[in-house]
Amino acid sequence: MPETEEPDLGLINSTVVIGAGLLGASIGAALTRAGVTVHLTDAVFSHARVAASLGAGTVDKPDPAAVRLVVVATPPRSLAAVIGEALDKYPNAAVTDVGSVKSRVLHQLQSTGRDLSRYLGSHPMAGSQHSGPMSASPDLFVDRTWAVTPHRQVSEPTADRVRLLIQVCGARYTAFTPEDHDRAVAQVSHLPQLVSVLMADHLLGIPSGHLELAGQGLRDVTRIAGSDPDLWEQIIAGNVDALRPELEDVRTRLDELIDALDDPAHKVRAFLQRGVNGTRQIPGKHGAPAMDYAQIVIELPDTPGALAQLFRDFADAGVNVEDIQIQHDLVRQVGYLAVSVEPGHLRDVQEAMRAAGWRLV
Amino acid sequence: MPETEEPDLGLINSTVVIGAGLLGASIGAALTRAGVTVHLTDAVFSHARVAASLGAGTVDKPDPAAVRLVVVATPPRSLAAVIGEALDKYPNAAVTDVGSVKSRVLHQLQSTGRDLSRYLGSHPMAGSQHSGPMSASPDLFVDRTWAVTPHRQVSEPTADRVRLLIQVCGARYTAFTPEDHDRAVAQVSHLPQLVSVLMADHLLGIPSGHLELAGQGLRDVTRIAGSDPDLWEQIIAGNVDALRPELEDVRTRLDELIDALDDPAHKVRAFLQRGVNGTRQIPGKHGAPAMDYAQIVIELPDTPGALAQLFRDFADAGVNVEDIQIQHDLVRQVGYLAVSVEPGHLRDVQEAMRAAGWRLV
Repeated sequence: MPETEEPDLGLINSTVVIGAGLLGASIGAALTRAGVTVHLTDAVFSHARVAASLGAGTVDKPDPAAVRLVVVATPPRSLAAVIGEALDKYPNAAVTDVGSVKSRVLHQLQSTGRDLSRYLGSHPMAGSQHSGPMSASPDLFVDRTWAVTPHRQVSEPTADRVRLLIQVCGARYTAFTPEDHDRAVAQVSHLPQLVSVLMADHLLGIPSGHLELAGQGLRDVTRIAGSDPDLWEQIIAGNVDALRPELEDVRTRLDELIDALDDPAHKVRAFLQRGVNGTRQIPGKHGAPAMDYAQIVIELPDTPGALAQLFRDFADAGVNVEDIQIQHDLVRQVGYLAVSVEPGHLRDVQEAMRAAGWRLV
Repeated sequence: MPETEEPDLGLINSTVVIGAGLLGASIGAALTRAGVTVHLTDAVFSHARVAASLGAGTVDKPDPAAVRLVVVATPPRSLAAVIGEALDKYPNAAVTDVGSVKSRVLHQLQSTGRDLSRYLGSHPMAGSQHSGPMSASPDLFVDRTWAVTPHRQVSEPTADRVRLLIQVCGARYTAFTPEDHDRAVAQVSHLPQLVSVLMADHLLGIPSGHLELAGQGLRDVTRIAGSDPDLWEQIIAGNVDALRPELEDVRTRLDELIDALDDPAHKVRAFLQRGVNGTRQIPGKHGAPAMDYAQIVIELPDTPGALAQLFRDFADAGVNVEDIQIQHDLVRQVGYLAVSVEPGHLRDVQEAMRAAGWRLV
């Protein structure tokens, strides 16, 4: 399905969304906005009703035979049962789910002996500290990664419908085997969750007066530790096998770090540098590749108002300054400003700055 | 010094700031704005000049005998030497520093045999991912905690001048013994730094494709791991004794967590709940105590536009809605919205919502 072709929404019209929480209601809102009829259900009817009142679909019941797509967005521990029921109840629908662990659910479904050609698991990389339909948005998935986890039985029409769902939600499609997916989320999602909890748990043992000295760093590291323990217990229970070796690896390197404390200048320094390198592995915001900015170095003359003028000239040139560093020339005692800009704009910025009379190094 | 009294800025006029990085330049800017003459120096002269051009003071040299306060804001490893030189060079000045570890510097100074009645260490809880004078702001310390760490030799005039510095910068004064301070920052600053690095370091060992699935949680947990390794090596080297037992405690609980994986429903659940409780220990933004919001529960009638009307009524009542949750009544099948507001506004909001025709539960 090339991106340029108008998607055939008939493929997924109508859709049933089971579970009208943040994810389900947001999917409903995105599909509804695109023109797809969405039927919302929830074990708690008022959730479905609130989601419907926010534009995520209708609480009217569909003709089961007319349903083309079912999205299961219920809590992790109920997924296999609800997916199985959906396959039975909607005989012409592709069924997907948005759970964050894939292998165990697939194995549970396989163990029921069902034909799974109409089931394809998926996992959108979106969420919020807030849960429930009140935080839902049709734009929740825009530019986010949405992984599908194909297994051998998946039929082509099923794959097409799930791909269309992802397209309509504005997300970026990617595919993993269920096993690779679960290993990946163990590493980049479940492990950070437990590391954050480990740090937050530690705070229970320290004098409360000491927390007066807490800064933004502690808040950032522990933010996700405040997440719903009930949800996370289910996620971790579903992915214990992938998580255990990751935690054991962290323990090994924690042992190394404790030993390294005797040699801060070399061993701790190397550890800290590995941390910096590690953060550079993370793609930029919303899954865009981490950008290497281009740098322009400008000599800073010793005249009043020079800096203010420089920034006015940047603004006039339409330059988005990404970062600024000051550099120095110990011998000549002049200052330099190193300015980071998007690589594609490098040449234009250089020309504009030269034209404005600045000396580039 | 009662807050209501006009501060006598003559006590700290003139002030020398040694080290024109983010902290030094910001202190210079705050004092300059208040009317204090600030003399900036830096081992790299262009740093001082840029800070001066941004309004943080002058690069002119002071009369050493006329200097009343010296603020040392140089990198950690140079602190003791620079403080010692400042005590010698400015015979009538109180000297403070803004280093993040206090005991070791004090012991180093004590070992020189100097009279330390004019030295009082301090530590403002402010910073930024960006370093250098370009990010400086006279408001950097407003409402931030600024700890002083008195020792037995500190004279009263010295304590008064440092307290005035903190007041002029708009920060919140607090006092710790050097040992308690260092234990506290080990717990709430240095340990989170190393935990963040531990997580970021781990990313170097995983397939890069797996990072496609990274979300905001990983970015938050690892953000501070991207900090300057040179600075952090110095901080850690200065506080190894306080850090070691904290890291060892984390290792003990990591061992427990790995064992707990066999029993997610009870042991992992309890661990996750402790994490939530831990995050609640952290005071609110800018050192304000964590606020317990008051909750109002409103019945949500099944009429179109009810939610939109509710939020219009909140806005008309001038209510700052802090959080929203939906609740449900399984029997009556009606929805409730639980709205969190500041406790002081509870009664007003209740009255306004009742007056607007809503049913409060």
